[in-house]
Amino acid sequence: MTTHSLLILPGDGIGPEVMAEVRKVIGWFEANKGLSFDVSEDLVGGAAYDKYGKPLADETMAKAQEVDAVLLGAVGGPAYDNLDFSLKPERGLLRLRKEMDLFANLRPAQCFDALADFSSLKRDVVAGLDILIVRELTSGIYFGEPRGIHADDNNPENEGGRVGINTQRYTSGEIRRVARAAFELARKRGNRVCSMEKANVMESGILWREEVQWVHDNEYPDVELSHMYADNGAMQLVRRPNQFDVIVTDNLFGDILSDAAAMLTGSLGMLPSASLGAPMANGKPKAMYEPVHGSAPDIAGQGKANPIACILSFAMCLRYSLNLGDDADLLERAVEKVLADGVRTADLMGAEGGTPVSTSEMGDKIVAAL
Amino acid sequence: MTTHSLLILPGDGIGPEVMAEVRKVIGWFEANKGLSFDVSEDLVGGAAYDKYGKPLADETMAKAQEVDAVLLGAVGGPAYDNLDFSLKPERGLLRLRKEMDLFANLRPAQCFDALADFSSLKRDVVAGLDILIVRELTSGIYFGEPRGIHADDNNPENEGGRVGINTQRYTSGEIRRVARAAFELARKRGNRVCSMEKANVMESGILWREEVQWVHDNEYPDVELSHMYADNGAMQLVRRPNQFDVIVTDNLFGDILSDAAAMLTGSLGMLPSASLGAPMANGKPKAMYEPVHGSAPDIAGQGKANPIACILSFAMCLRYSLNLGDDADLLERAVEKVLADGVRTADLMGAEGGTPVSTSEMGDKIVAAL
Ligand SMILES: CC(C)[C@H](C(=O)O)[C@@H](O)C(=O)O
Ligand SMILES: CC(C)[C@H](C(=O)O)[C@@H](O)C(=O)O
Repeated sequence: MTTHSLLILPGDGIGPEVMAEVRKVIGWFEANKGLSFDVSEDLVGGAAYDKYGKPLADETMAKAQEVDAVLLGAVGGPAYDNLDFSLKPERGLLRLRKEMDLFANLRPAQCFDALADFSSLKRDVVAGLDILIVRELTSGIYFGEPRGIHADDNNPENEGGRVGINTQRYTSGEIRRVARAAFELARKRGNRVCSMEKANVMESGILWREEVQWVHDNEYPDVELSHMYADNGAMQLVRRPNQFDVIVTDNLFGDILSDAAAMLTGSLGMLPSASLGAPMANGKPKAMYEPVHGSAPDIAGQGKANPIACILSFAMCLRYSLNLGDDADLLERAVEKVLADGVRTADLMGAEGGTPVSTSEMGDKIVAAL
Repeated sequence: MTTHSLLILPGDGIGPEVMAEVRKVIGWFEANKGLSFDVSEDLVGGAAYDKYGKPLADETMAKAQEVDAVLLGAVGGPAYDNLDFSLKPERGLLRLRKEMDLFANLRPAQCFDALADFSSLKRDVVAGLDILIVRELTSGIYFGEPRGIHADDNNPENEGGRVGINTQRYTSGEIRRVARAAFELARKRGNRVCSMEKANVMESGILWREEVQWVHDNEYPDVELSHMYADNGAMQLVRRPNQFDVIVTDNLFGDILSDAAAMLTGSLGMLPSASLGAPMANGKPKAMYEPVHGSAPDIAGQGKANPIACILSFAMCLRYSLNLGDDADLLERAVEKVLADGVRTADLMGAEGGTPVSTSEMGDKIVAAL
């Protein structure tokens, strides 16, 4: 029997709470489906800073490189707001993404029918929504050099005397590999890819457009490809999101657009993500799974958090890292059933009211529905 | 009697069509309110390229620097897609913004009651919406150096052998002046400013946050200031847009977020903008007014375009450049009345159907309602 190695990094805020529910789900699959997991746990973000003085210990980084998959909760919180930039909780997360070379971040935005009335958008606009944003995750303005805040004292025109710099830098190779990931995924779905950039004002956007087109023309001519400026993309996501199948975009636009898309589904508490890299020796891709939501410090420790995003991230892990598509389906259907039964955490309570369940109760209900 | 000098640059696509309706409005104010305008007209964008070989002639640029206000339609279109980057229609627009130093771009998103059901968002989410996005317009990644696409042939790891670069660069002075504009505007409205950046991943975002806070603490302590990450901002705009009063953000985030906000109001065809710079010798700010929408090549020349965004941009001109707030109110009320009467261009037709009016008929109705 194969044993799957998992590294769990619960992180900060509600991270540990939602991850505890994933532990229950893992336990269920071990007990009932004969799966075997070797689970280790460590710190990331503010929690790692508190213990190790930095947001990710080297040992944790090394461990992440070895396991079949990393499951991450969330990082950050106001307690760490005044830390030096290089020590911020977010740097731990970005280090994992970068050193594991997780270039393709998959962010599905699906609207569960039971929640269609809960979105701020009209039911007919979001019902049946099923789009997949593929965000480049290891390059662009998040990582480009030069960067920093510098003195600009000798410039009499610069009141305040400082300058802040970040660099958007994409190589053609970086664009091609994430484009391939998007086209592959599209083939298993609606066979359509829309690429988003600002080629009208940014040269890096022109390169993006040309390279995506090149990959299409040379390798995926069977997939339908369109291009859209990212500002129009933001608008179209709000106007008529169902027009999209797979969206491929860069690190920064992907960050913004996927959060806008997330909101279409009703609650950020629902949205999972997978970050995939190149195949390892065993053929599985390097991979990390995390909910799209953050550490939500305002509700941390109160048992209010919605564990579904984290649980659905584990479903993506079953599918993409462990090749257990049927088990992933099973877990997704359990979530769907619980929602259809009207079980709601606080973030899913509409104006009509009712009594929300706790984080732990939601986890129990999902396990019971498996 | 003061004569107000205006430079009209209709541009490409639907630009000339919507601007023709503004001409009617100007004519009405001349005939009925004793205003006097000295109007000249010239080319920008693809239209300028066709005639002069570049997207903005130097003479046009010089003229723009002299007038009380520039009115611009829209630029761009597929016919110019393969032009060299420096010749693209958009470069004409960006040159105007940059050389006139129009650092504060005001993009109000208001939901007219008559159109609240037309938004893809629920009525209760958008009804009464009245927010103002202040976008920095002359710096950031749109203009930073180094930029371009370069060969990267000697890098064996870079399949494709090219690299695309853009630079986000903000000085403290650039941030402070747009922050001041936002705080001033907030004082005349709800007295609240929300500043958006990605200070968790970008140093230029840290500088942004610190400088906005500095201006607040030293000069506008009476205005309520909050900070939000731009990805969360995109989400909150879709979730509960009424939580905002004034939003201040950088050039790129402002581009994306204002388009998302625009869609809340039902149609991009409704959204005006003002781009303001420093005061000229006569005390008036350098200024350009333009609809938020683009040149919409797909409907150009068909009389389908909605001229309201362009007409409301002229209302902003009356208010901000000509100090004619009452006349601006009058024009805005005329638009509101026509909408309340059910007059609709094609972009404002809902599922219930009906017969849309043409661009020109909409202009006539608004003039008649004045
Ligand atoms: C926490 C932060 C660094 C991160 C990002 O900006 O990528 C988050 O917003 C996300 O989308 O995963
Ligand atoms: C046409 C384009 C250059 C422009 C921009 O990106 O600023 C437009 O999208 C806008 O928002 O005014």
